[in-house]
Amino acid sequence: MNARTKGQIHIIGAGLLGTSIGLALSNLNVDVSLEDSSPAVQSLAIDFAAGRQLSPEDNVSLVVVCVPPDVTATTIISALNRFPEAIVTDVASVKVAVLEAVNASSADSLRYVGSHPMAGREKGGALSGRPDLFVGRPWVITVEESTQEKAVNAVEMLALDLGATTMRLSAADHDRAVALISHAPQVVSSLLASRLVDADDFDLALAGQGVRDTTRIAASDPNLWLQILSMNSHQLLPVLKDFQKELDDMVTALGNVSGSGSLATLGNSLERGNLGIARLPGKHGTRNTSYAQVVVMIDDKPGELARLFNEVGAAQVNIEDLKLDHASGAQVGLVEISVLPASEEKLLATLRTNGWKLAG
Amino acid sequence: MNARTKGQIHIIGAGLLGTSIGLALSNLNVDVSLEDSSPAVQSLAIDFAAGRQLSPEDNVSLVVVCVPPDVTATTIISALNRFPEAIVTDVASVKVAVLEAVNASSADSLRYVGSHPMAGREKGGALSGRPDLFVGRPWVITVEESTQEKAVNAVEMLALDLGATTMRLSAADHDRAVALISHAPQVVSSLLASRLVDADDFDLALAGQGVRDTTRIAASDPNLWLQILSMNSHQLLPVLKDFQKELDDMVTALGNVSGSGSLATLGNSLERGNLGIARLPGKHGTRNTSYAQVVVMIDDKPGELARLFNEVGAAQVNIEDLKLDHASGAQVGLVEISVLPASEEKLLATLRTNGWKLAG
Repeated sequence: MNARTKGQIHIIGAGLLGTSIGLALSNLNVDVSLEDSSPAVQSLAIDFAAGRQLSPEDNVSLVVVCVPPDVTATTIISALNRFPEAIVTDVASVKVAVLEAVNASSADSLRYVGSHPMAGREKGGALSGRPDLFVGRPWVITVEESTQEKAVNAVEMLALDLGATTMRLSAADHDRAVALISHAPQVVSSLLASRLVDADDFDLALAGQGVRDTTRIAASDPNLWLQILSMNSHQLLPVLKDFQKELDDMVTALGNVSGSGSLATLGNSLERGNLGIARLPGKHGTRNTSYAQVVVMIDDKPGELARLFNEVGAAQVNIEDLKLDHASGAQVGLVEISVLPASEEKLLATLRTNGWKLAG
Repeated sequence: MNARTKGQIHIIGAGLLGTSIGLALSNLNVDVSLEDSSPAVQSLAIDFAAGRQLSPEDNVSLVVVCVPPDVTATTIISALNRFPEAIVTDVASVKVAVLEAVNASSADSLRYVGSHPMAGREKGGALSGRPDLFVGRPWVITVEESTQEKAVNAVEMLALDLGATTMRLSAADHDRAVALISHAPQVVSSLLASRLVDADDFDLALAGQGVRDTTRIAASDPNLWLQILSMNSHQLLPVLKDFQKELDDMVTALGNVSGSGSLATLGNSLERGNLGIARLPGKHGTRNTSYAQVVVMIDDKPGELARLFNEVGAAQVNIEDLKLDHASGAQVGLVEISVLPASEEKLLATLRTNGWKLAG
């Protein structure tokens, strides 16, 4: 495959994102140089074949700044000055604060265009880098009135080379969107998980899939998220204040359940929850389809999943979603298979014929 | 298999739980009768082979009340009077309010013992009933000082016959535990999903797995949850008030990010989130192990999962957890496979040898 990206790409910051970009571009035979403020990290990423060292006679066409959010703006400004012919982009998950700092500097900000690949892992660092990190993920490119098409194009070619789906948004629209669908869920998940810190072991023993799903992202890196939340506080605050207001109303209602209007308050919020989740786009960007779920018990040993999916595949039933759950205290797994409602009967018949034990 | 449950079991309420209990016991050749306040629902459940009609000469040994929480106590009291020799239990997810109402009645409350199978589905009704609904799930039996061992035993035998794992707790301990690990997550998830109701489609297009996981249970039945939340408000309030207090502190800090102590407040909550989620028991009741994750791209068609798990199984790699994700706008799926860190290299080698495309 020929790369769309032309010329030499220079990556600043060899963490998870920088290393992954370097690996993917190197695989496409793009000339990649990289640097990191830590010489050890830089050597590691070069050993890892994510790129080569920068040399004085290099002619960089695009700089990709992949440093933590709190040093992104200063690194962009310095890059605009160090590479006077290059287009400069970054991958930070907050865009307005970075853009404002760059515009307020004396650097040639017309060569800067912000971007945000919606990819990542809970585990960071060069060693976690993977060339396919961005495949199938959205990559937002932030476009303002003053943004030059040439700069946007260069970043779009980069994102397409990495397998991402590009999307143009203003920095403000991007920050508003991620406040709602990423930053607020992070805060709420962390606050919910925080309730578990002092819980009794007995209480936690009853934990099911609900509390696990709602708290999963509470395991994310606090240092990174501290920067993200504080840099996007302006967009995050209205979302959290709406949440706070509705929570306050629920707490008041729960404090006086028999009071006039209390049940209506509780019921309204629960119903709004139904409406809200129905608005999330489903698989392949379409609306959520209501799937039929079938739960199968499997022995917790190699080969069982293979046998299960073999038989489901042989029956020509397409699996729309699946989840592995674990029966507490038992060496069995529960596999929840979601299929289109029209396929449910065929799936159940197949499973029964093959002797699988169905669970709830 | 011989049933541990002896004598005739009578089920009141043929919804999801009542029908599932009836189906499981009938499969074990236990004599099951059932009734429902709706004649149509009762006929449906009997057609469904979940049990037979009650007859005047019956000699019921155990009554299982499976009606909605708000009518559970009155139904138990009536059952204690209607079946003067029988033990009576229920399956409602709130226990103190039910117990107090039964104790305050003139019925023979010594024959009552509360229970709560931690099983269910977002979809209710007799048609959703399944004999294996309770397999591998915890089933709490609430035991007070006055509770008779004979009554507890009868319910334990029932739960074991249904494949559940039994657990004895006081009604108050049960209600405190579920407030923390079930009711508070429900409220928080509903309130978070409620923020999406008026969102722009563009903002929602950026939604990833984080917001999906945190809001999944917001799809639950509002009528059922309205009853649960209002009946357990006493235990739920302290959890929500702690959440509220920590949220208020975060909102204040976000409103003045450069103020003294603001970053410490935000960082503390994020770190407490890390600590809290680490306390959730992991697979098979052990602590969470840190698994290695490998993400594989698959074509979205029948048979692909089978081929993948076949090859993983053939390599003797045990899958600890897995998740299907969907690349937005593309007909591909991303399968995240979790394995023990020691198996990661073997898994990666197997996948590469077999030509699978790895993603991030």
